[in-house]
Amino acid sequence: MSYKLRARPVIGITMGDPAGIGPEIILKALSRLGLKAARIIGSRAVFEQEQQRLKTSVDLSLVDDAVPAPGRFTMGRVQKNCGQAALAALEVGVELLRTGAISAMVTAPVSKESLRLAGFGWPGQTEFLAERLGCRRPAMLAWTPRFKVVFVTIHLPLALVAPLITAQAVAEKIRMLAGFLRSEGRTKPRIGVMAFNPHATEFSLGEEKRILAGIRLARRSGAQATGPLPADSVALRLREFDGFVAMFHDQAMIPAKLLGRGRGVNVTLGLGRVRTSPLHGVAFDIAGTGQASPGSMIAALRLARRLAQRCRQ
Amino acid sequence: MSYKLRARPVIGITMGDPAGIGPEIILKALSRLGLKAARIIGSRAVFEQEQQRLKTSVDLSLVDDAVPAPGRFTMGRVQKNCGQAALAALEVGVELLRTGAISAMVTAPVSKESLRLAGFGWPGQTEFLAERLGCRRPAMLAWTPRFKVVFVTIHLPLALVAPLITAQAVAEKIRMLAGFLRSEGRTKPRIGVMAFNPHATEFSLGEEKRILAGIRLARRSGAQATGPLPADSVALRLREFDGFVAMFHDQAMIPAKLLGRGRGVNVTLGLGRVRTSPLHGVAFDIAGTGQASPGSMIAALRLARRLAQRCRQ
Repeated sequence: MSYKLRARPVIGITMGDPAGIGPEIILKALSRLGLKAARIIGSRAVFEQEQQRLKTSVDLSLVDDAVPAPGRFTMGRVQKNCGQAALAALEVGVELLRTGAISAMVTAPVSKESLRLAGFGWPGQTEFLAERLGCRRPAMLAWTPRFKVVFVTIHLPLALVAPLITAQAVAEKIRMLAGFLRSEGRTKPRIGVMAFNPHATEFSLGEEKRILAGIRLARRSGAQATGPLPADSVALRLREFDGFVAMFHDQAMIPAKLLGRGRGVNVTLGLGRVRTSPLHGVAFDIAGTGQASPGSMIAALRLARRLAQRCRQ
Repeated sequence: MSYKLRARPVIGITMGDPAGIGPEIILKALSRLGLKAARIIGSRAVFEQEQQRLKTSVDLSLVDDAVPAPGRFTMGRVQKNCGQAALAALEVGVELLRTGAISAMVTAPVSKESLRLAGFGWPGQTEFLAERLGCRRPAMLAWTPRFKVVFVTIHLPLALVAPLITAQAVAEKIRMLAGFLRSEGRTKPRIGVMAFNPHATEFSLGEEKRILAGIRLARRSGAQATGPLPADSVALRLREFDGFVAMFHDQAMIPAKLLGRGRGVNVTLGLGRVRTSPLHGVAFDIAGTGQASPGSMIAALRLARRLAQRCRQ
């Protein structure tokens, strides 16, 4: 292996749920990208079968084979053995990331139901990684070329969100987004902060006052933040801002998926490590049909590579 | 006036807040459309001034002049006299609509703050029109060529929405949307019903069960409804459905504004009359600058004309 090759950051890719589209999009993405400095963290048996089915020609020596093969399973179903395999890949991946054996981790989609059958107790992969890496307050960034948005709250019943919209929480997410955007070369990132209620203040029960207090706190530490903006006005103001902060899941994900056009990436901020993933799930409805688009996985790999290279600079 | 002209439905256009972009987009839209069977319900003085500023050449005999001129006012500001003028236009317009003197009503944007200074006590124009027309349960439809969505709840604090997501409310909105889509020529309209919580059922506190019960109720009356769908998945499933039902304001308006590209229309269903309006507000920030795009007003006028013609058939 040449110096040049070794100097490249190695991207670890966890296989996700083998009954979902994870292995398919990994193989398709690697075929397109020709990425060599990658390690696939999964079962070689799964990838051999998938490669045969898809007729891709990815070098399967890239597969770590650190995960016991799940045995027999049906595509597109919630299954305990698939949850166990997905969890094992995550466990290996996070250890490689923690020790620096990989410079970035790209996680293929998991089924939370299958993971739960395997004894996984976290709300999602992000929370699991945060705990394993000793990070108390990770943040989710939905990344697309045109639209970048950080979530103040993510995986919660919507009826419980309002009291969690605090000035501290808002300020923290603004700062994390500003940090990310600065590292992307925006010296003075302009951040638009969405309101919680329709039309911003008109129907507010106090959330917008707290958002404004958060904006002011963040401004004191140099962030150029504006808001609270009516969330539906953002569509028409994309050029005015380098990134946005949303108060809840759908407010961020609806525009991210519309504007991402199948190429959105989920980035975890605050881990002290690079972690990205495609902005979609296991897609059990099309798993095993060969129809899955690798667009979002390709974007996740490219962004991970770029972020990891920057970390080394 | 020829028979053909008289046979055309007459569209009444309320001027909206004179300090906003209403008069500007009305004149620009009429210039482009060359619509003759229209009555502008407003103050002629306002339109004469606006026409001079914009150098349009709309036939100002179309202006009813049924509304007292507001006197001196500043563009882009909340003002009582402008609220009074906007309210007077609405009062005249709804009376013309009620008596059948106009076949459809297109309302230009109002400032709720200005209306309130003038003693207006309704949450918005829709609720005012519903009360005046004796309609107990209107529904808001955000209409764009690619995406049509009816709201289960609209102008409320988001923290108060969850208990209003009832099976009855969901079923009613599905039926109203199905009726609209059928009248648009879709004999078996396919309706996608959004979930309230992120990922649909995963974090549900019961709202998704009630939505499902509503879907089943609506199916019994023949509606082809599917859901609850994760609201952020809708972006990728636009072709599968003829229309959608959303649970709250931003869930509907974020995709409507993104997909409407400045040409969205607000349609009120259930009034027994045709009423449309542009899918934007008074835009005080650009009022008086001549920069306002008439795209949404043009779409609102076209749709009103089409709906009114259909009512006559």
